[in-house]
Amino acid sequence: MIQVILLGYGNVGSHLLQELVFRENVKVVQVYNRSPFELPKEMQNIETTQNLSDLKEADVYITSISDDTISEFTEKLPFQNRLVVHTSGAVSMDVLSNKNRKGVFYPLQTFSKNQEVDFKNIPVCIEAENPQDLKILKALGELISDKVVKINSEQRATIHVAAVFVNNFTNYLYQIGADILSEKDIPFEILIPLIQETGKKIERLSPEMAQTGPAKRNDQKTIEKHLKMIQNESYKELYALITKQLQAYHKPKNHEL
Amino acid sequence: MIQVILLGYGNVGSHLLQELVFRENVKVVQVYNRSPFELPKEMQNIETTQNLSDLKEADVYITSISDDTISEFTEKLPFQNRLVVHTSGAVSMDVLSNKNRKGVFYPLQTFSKNQEVDFKNIPVCIEAENPQDLKILKALGELISDKVVKINSEQRATIHVAAVFVNNFTNYLYQIGADILSEKDIPFEILIPLIQETGKKIERLSPEMAQTGPAKRNDQKTIEKHLKMIQNESYKELYALITKQLQAYHKPKNHEL
Repeated sequence: MIQVILLGYGNVGSHLLQELVFRENVKVVQVYNRSPFELPKEMQNIETTQNLSDLKEADVYITSISDDTISEFTEKLPFQNRLVVHTSGAVSMDVLSNKNRKGVFYPLQTFSKNQEVDFKNIPVCIEAENPQDLKILKALGELISDKVVKINSEQRATIHVAAVFVNNFTNYLYQIGADILSEKDIPFEILIPLIQETGKKIERLSPEMAQTGPAKRNDQKTIEKHLKMIQNESYKELYALITKQLQAYHKPKNHEL
Repeated sequence: MIQVILLGYGNVGSHLLQELVFRENVKVVQVYNRSPFELPKEMQNIETTQNLSDLKEADVYITSISDDTISEFTEKLPFQNRLVVHTSGAVSMDVLSNKNRKGVFYPLQTFSKNQEVDFKNIPVCIEAENPQDLKILKALGELISDKVVKINSEQRATIHVAAVFVNNFTNYLYQIGADILSEKDIPFEILIPLIQETGKKIERLSPEMAQTGPAKRNDQKTIEKHLKMIQNESYKELYALITKQLQAYHKPKNHEL
């Protein structure tokens, strides 16, 4: 039975609680949050606190707080030599306070309040200073996910950059699509099957193989027509830049044909 | 019973055939392609031809050929006053030859050879010069899709621009993600759950609401760290541009808080 205390009850913290609370072999001992919070009805038997000095003993303390505050926050914990992990893709394991044993438990996913996710498919990237702690994190990860991977801080930073492109920036492209349609009163819903197929295709084809469109096939006529149609100067600039990069990328291959 | 002849057996043509061939209430009379081609075994009872003068009579002729060739190709068809439609998002209905009745039957989706798609969810955008022909296209569309929408050429051009952003450009972001990971020998598969959740989230949240990441929360420290980490100059330029645009877009709202 792994005893867990969650430190922080935001998007990541609340999703982790949801996943852990009803599993066998794990017990959520306590949930801490700085500001007032309330657990869902069915979890109200779990102890909550806003006071660090009330923290109990546990096998692993999982912080899910903003990156900038991890260092200072973990320095303030009123105990030492226990396993304290963060859940961030962006920061190194080293930002954790030296007072405790360090680790990382990073679920590679985008979480929003009130949006359920299927944890089974979420890669959980784990890291720890020593093998025993890594074993605890592995056991904990495998309770909720089929894909637990040992990833060091440098690799995790790389994954985080890649995730910004495929998640944050992709979502911005969705927003541009929605915006362009709304100017002509066309509902955004019409694009959703295309968006989802775009994300499904790359299960079987590499993104390079899956690439289609006017830039890939160097269709200058359509590109110019599109640039004329786009009113918003930012979107026009972005269209031009990505098109230029796609053309440059696929050019050598076109010559080969 | 709607009689259909398919003109062109590329990605779109072959997927349309696949969908139409085993339906009731529609008969694929013939498939034409300029270059030699072969239908799948189970469809070899369908007549094929590479010769325009062999074309039979049908209720609707569906061309799926490259945009640039639609005008010239439909001018060469050896008949008149029949319903001839194209399947392109990018070009106006007007590019079709005046010899025949014009229409558009545009499935809003990305097709790749050997990749099956679920047509039921694909919006089919239809347009025709006259109400009777629109009725035929609507009936044909509803045989294969639950979402048949009447869309004029101007709206369709707008949808096509939006589709370039959410499909072609998004796929390029996937490619960048794959590239960044491969430099550190991390398999691209690790990003797939995140990619698919990104496309799923917007069923329930607007892209604006779904936006997360360092640019959205104006986390300059992470942004600078990422820019330093990205080796490829093109990717760096794109990261900087999208981040600038996201920061500008979300800035007023940050002030409101």
